[in-house]
Amino acid sequence: MKDKNIFIAVIGGSDCSAEEASLAEEVGREIARNGAVLVCGGLGGVMEAACRGASHEGGLTIGILPGDNRRTANPFVRIPIVTGIGYARNVAVVKSAQAVIAIDGSYGTLSEISHALQSKIPVIGLNTWSLSINGQPDNSIIPADSPKDAVKRAIELINNQYPE
Amino acid sequence: MKDKNIFIAVIGGSDCSAEEASLAEEVGREIARNGAVLVCGGLGGVMEAACRGASHEGGLTIGILPGDNRRTANPFVRIPIVTGIGYARNVAVVKSAQAVIAIDGSYGTLSEISHALQSKIPVIGLNTWSLSINGQPDNSIIPADSPKDAVKRAIELINNQYPE
Amino acid sequence: MKDKNIFIAVIGGSDCSAEEASLAEEVGREIARNGAVLVCGGLGGVMEAACRGASHEGGLTIGILPGDNRRTANPFVRIPIVTGIGYARNVAVVKSAQAVIAIDGSYGTLSEISHALQSKIPVIGLNTWSLSINGQPDNSIIPADSPKDAVKRAIELINNQYPE
Amino acid sequence: MKDKNIFIAVIGGSDCSAEEASLAEEVGREIARNGAVLVCGGLGGVMEAACRGASHEGGLTIGILPGDNRRTANPFVRIPIVTGIGYARNVAVVKSAQAVIAIDGSYGTLSEISHALQSKIPVIGLNTWSLSINGQPDNSIIPADSPKDAVKRAIELINNQYPE
Repeated sequence: MKDKNIFIAVIGGSDCSAEEASLAEEVGREIARNGAVLVCGGLGGVMEAACRGASHEGGLTIGILPGDNRRTANPFVRIPIVTGIGYARNVAVVKSAQAVIAIDGSYGTLSEISHALQSKIPVIGLNTWSLSINGQPDNSIIPADSPKDAVKRAIELINNQYPE
Repeated sequence: MKDKNIFIAVIGGSDCSAEEASLAEEVGREIARNGAVLVCGGLGGVMEAACRGASHEGGLTIGILPGDNRRTANPFVRIPIVTGIGYARNVAVVKSAQAVIAIDGSYGTLSEISHALQSKIPVIGLNTWSLSINGQPDNSIIPADSPKDAVKRAIELINNQYPE
Repeated sequence: MKDKNIFIAVIGGSDCSAEEASLAEEVGREIARNGAVLVCGGLGGVMEAACRGASHEGGLTIGILPGDNRRTANPFVRIPIVTGIGYARNVAVVKSAQAVIAIDGSYGTLSEISHALQSKIPVIGLNTWSLSINGQPDNSIIPADSPKDAVKRAIELINNQYPE
Repeated sequence: MKDKNIFIAVIGGSDCSAEEASLAEEVGREIARNGAVLVCGGLGGVMEAACRGASHEGGLTIGILPGDNRRTANPFVRIPIVTGIGYARNVAVVKSAQAVIAIDGSYGTLSEISHALQSKIPVIGLNTWSLSINGQPDNSIIPADSPKDAVKRAIELINNQYPE
């Protein structure tokens, strides 16, 4: 763990396909390989796969839980934050990160994308939502080609936004 | 005020165009004419226009505020709820309603749409976001032709979902 | 309902003794008789008794609920606010009022007293907590002799604090 | 950092006396010496002193912030959690710990003590609030003689409550 950590959130549903889990796990691995801290909602699906990946590379994983019990965290969460505020914790997941990587398409994920964009936190997407408003596409979600590309873009955006 | 109230949320940005304000005001009027209670985020723009409309028809208006001060409510809010929880209050705005009418397209509005769909609360849209996931359209937001049509659909959905 | 409402919160446990329920019901009646709006946490015990009293006098009652379902409100709540944020809603209960009347002594009530005092919202107590710090009494909770006295003090404090 | 962490919260005001800061710093040191993770509200005063102590012993420090900006964390917070929910974050501070050590006596601290006791999380006190209800003392806050004693009791309580 470096002295000044970079925090990247991985957001996605608590149920996910095998393909999405595979993407999430590789995103988690890349985050850890780059010495960044993984922030997520702490539950299963995309969140668990990402934590598993980060954990296997020795990375630090934070799970910001909706409920009242730390035991609801997936087994790869090292730092469970027990909020007790339900889905309102989605706001804290994205605000606790400097960039967000969205995988898949639950409505919870969409709420996190929205809260991130509202807070001007960059969002990188892998197989996720597309938005348009009155027929005009909104291109705020930055598409990535691969987990490696997603993490690379996240780190570049953070370094540009928060220069030393 | 009838004994058993119907609660409809109007969501939209705190800045809005004249056209959006006009739609919102008419939605507010229709909500009040139908004896329903208007729920919103309590601030300006779409929220204020909707409250103005409902207020002019003698309707009850609830503003669920993000900040710490009831004086931040627009002047047409009769019941200010002071949450102090910032944008996490978006969750409470939609959960406090039985149907949601979305006007315009800020990211805050999109977060409220997402939280509503996640909670299985129907969302009716007027000039608002369109969603697609991996290239497939998601048609969960029910389009309305006019403010009157939007409120009519909201009330029908509520009556079907919560029969006497 | 007057044009400019006064909002008074009644706080107390969801389980309470018959004596506490009787005090709470009379506090609710007095709030309504004075044309003020009753704010509470929306559940049973002290909250339900207070809402019953206010309701019998034709008063308006707001229940700021911790959970996800408006049906958890007691039957005398006219305006259920569904927060979904658990006990963090205690903050919204007190911030939505201009004065707080505390009855009985659960830890939830103590958290609401604390949040009110932190926000400089006056707290009037009936059979409730006493505080001391390092052996020195803290007299911030204003004792009342009776429900009528409690509501009278609340209204005086509000009128002094928020003069026309 | 051991594989299975113990989490201890230190709660106290953002302004504090030199004596309180000294107690808090020593509590932080003891937490770190025992391999536990320090959780706090992330700001100044007692929170900063505790984080400084833990940090000097190489411990991990988590700051659960009320606002929207990680830069509001004191310089000894390694893991800033940015909630954006204001003082409602007090609930998350105590729920994220398995035992709580309270130093001093602000109303924010009292709200955290209350939320902890409501959630059945043990509270150990150093120069902090005393409670009584209707003239009867409530002895739920466990008094400690010294920072070392406070941390020792916290760890014993956690180990008894959550045996391997």
